[in-house]
Amino acid sequence: MTNDGFDIKPIGFVRSTIKSRADAPKQGREGAPDAWLEIEADVAEGADGIAPGDEIIVLTWLHLARRDELKVHPRGDTANALTGVFDTRSPDRPNPIGLHRVVVREVAGRRLLVGPLEAVDGTPIVDIKPALDRLADS
Amino acid sequence: MTNDGFDIKPIGFVRSTIKSRADAPKQGREGAPDAWLEIEADVAEGADGIAPGDEIIVLTWLHLARRDELKVHPRGDTANALTGVFDTRSPDRPNPIGLHRVVVREVAGRRLLVGPLEAVDGTPIVDIKPALDRLADS
Repeated sequence: MTNDGFDIKPIGFVRSTIKSRADAPKQGREGAPDAWLEIEADVAEGADGIAPGDEIIVLTWLHLARRDELKVHPRGDTANALTGVFDTRSPDRPNPIGLHRVVVREVAGRRLLVGPLEAVDGTPIVDIKPALDRLADS
Repeated sequence: MTNDGFDIKPIGFVRSTIKSRADAPKQGREGAPDAWLEIEADVAEGADGIAPGDEIIVLTWLHLARRDELKVHPRGDTANALTGVFDTRSPDRPNPIGLHRVVVREVAGRRLLVGPLEAVDGTPIVDIKPALDRLADS
């Protein structure tokens, strides 16, 4: 067993009208827009089969987050007691992986229009998975 | 924009009776046992607030997976047509992040008993998040 890390590589990037963390809703369903997932050419084949109407889970690397936070006030509201980050959906956490359940609106080559998505423009995408059924999944 | 990778560090490890990938069910609900999440001491504070009965999402690094696969036969069954890995839940994918929705059974210091969990003993844990509601989440 080791504590060594692993190298995670972007498989693509988010292209969104949201340009800063301050402009991003905290969750997709809180008024987020649709956004494009632009898949890198060398792994684009991995998206074969994804079609409009599919529900997918997008994992992102929240590159603007702080990795040294272990406790936060949920939703940035100091009225909420300090809570361990693993008990919150704060982007600030040791491995800032974002988890987004979205619907595929359109597929255009290696670009997927999905939504609603609260990620900031330029956010690296690290994985995409199909959602399983709503009751048992993720 | 860059294609450089990011360094992801385990926040803990799975302790399970499942000792090999061959013994692991493909999804937790397919007969997987409960297992312990052993959180590393330096980030254990991040789990403060997690309690028995909570539904959480555990993200793992599937260290036994192949990272060079872009197409697979879903569920390893050659009767299923080759499909892009991002349209499957195969562990084999460029960034082998596992996504597991589980219930917390017990909290013992920095160890959490959760289940059902299909991950193999020794699998690195990279993040833990609370599940949101079943309809909108993840």
